[in-house]
Amino acid sequence: MTKTATALSATARTTLGRKKDRASTDRGALHAVLDEGLVCHLGLVTGGAPMVLPTGYGRDGDTLYLHGSSGASTMRAAADGPEICVTVTLVDAVIYARSVNNHSMNYRSAVIYGRPREVTERTEKLHGLRVLTDHLAPGSWEHARGVSPKELAAVTVLALDLTEASVKMRTGGVVDDESDVEAAAAWAGVLPVYTGFGEPQSDPLLPQGTSTPEHVSLRRPVRQSDPA
Amino acid sequence: MTKTATALSATARTTLGRKKDRASTDRGALHAVLDEGLVCHLGLVTGGAPMVLPTGYGRDGDTLYLHGSSGASTMRAAADGPEICVTVTLVDAVIYARSVNNHSMNYRSAVIYGRPREVTERTEKLHGLRVLTDHLAPGSWEHARGVSPKELAAVTVLALDLTEASVKMRTGGVVDDESDVEAAAAWAGVLPVYTGFGEPQSDPLLPQGTSTPEHVSLRRPVRQSDPA
Repeated sequence: MTKTATALSATARTTLGRKKDRASTDRGALHAVLDEGLVCHLGLVTGGAPMVLPTGYGRDGDTLYLHGSSGASTMRAAADGPEICVTVTLVDAVIYARSVNNHSMNYRSAVIYGRPREVTERTEKLHGLRVLTDHLAPGSWEHARGVSPKELAAVTVLALDLTEASVKMRTGGVVDDESDVEAAAAWAGVLPVYTGFGEPQSDPLLPQGTSTPEHVSLRRPVRQSDPA
Repeated sequence: MTKTATALSATARTTLGRKKDRASTDRGALHAVLDEGLVCHLGLVTGGAPMVLPTGYGRDGDTLYLHGSSGASTMRAAADGPEICVTVTLVDAVIYARSVNNHSMNYRSAVIYGRPREVTERTEKLHGLRVLTDHLAPGSWEHARGVSPKELAAVTVLALDLTEASVKMRTGGVVDDESDVEAAAAWAGVLPVYTGFGEPQSDPLLPQGTSTPEHVSLRRPVRQSDPA
């Protein structure tokens, strides 16, 4: 089993304990976690207190795009360029140990700190929306009607550099005290947790006989690494 | 389709837009989201900046318990009683619309604000750990070896009242512009997202022939409400 934190930058808050020598794969691990998640948790400070809200995102290289209604107070606050924290967590397994104390979870999480930049230039803003759409619904950018000028004006797009970021994960199996293993009084093992897609449900207002396109019917969860 | 925010308290940050008259089910909706999630995202302010970290939790009535190693800086910071924010998000579906702009997700999220209280009294601390264990691994509290005094001392347990909290959710199907529905140029529908458990993997150090107990082999994801 591995419980490790891979630091991607040198600041104190992203340099965590029990590191391993995984420097060559750090950025790949960060990208893999971000590409597999569906929502991130956006942290802001408002009136001195923390606020954590789920939101969509998308990644292009080392830029993370976030978006929301221009009217949303969260987006307005974040667009002002304060420090934010974006966290994406994937749960991979529940670890059943021989003692209550050694129960755990396998997970992979990415934490990114930075000051977002509001994207206002039209071409980049459309690019950001395309990246967000490709993440949420791959294929929809080509398939669905594009963004109108009015729709473009009503959305705020933020860009966050993946400069100050860390990946933390627990993988592998049970780690029990030797005396508990010898006592053999309890079961121990790994219960995998996964995320899947169900059968697509066509909108009832579609014309009779409309078939579901393959970018939806063949969609499978992103799985870029085997954490077990 | 319903996009609604059910306010459970009267503060500005938990009173969200587009409310519906669901007052009678508000607390039930909050409990259902919390009971179905596996991890929460804990938001703290450190040095003026937000920090969002995934962590385990458990609910007993209107108290949320969190825990972590007494040595973890996050737990030490949270135990000092600052304002924290705890968010649990369940993703239920990807909504494919006829326009890029109307793409969305079905989700349910709970956001709780408050100042946590460190639980130090032995009986309540053990109770908190039991609640946390029952959430992560139902049945393990009875099955596995209990918590030793040394283990109890090495863990910090926090209690957070579910006083200031809100639930936000989007349910139902596609909401498209009428002109896009008439044009019928794109597919639209709902792609359900679900979380499941795989086959339990027994620890290789178990004695030959050890069978997997039913609290593990029969475990199914908690699903207290049908959001569709």
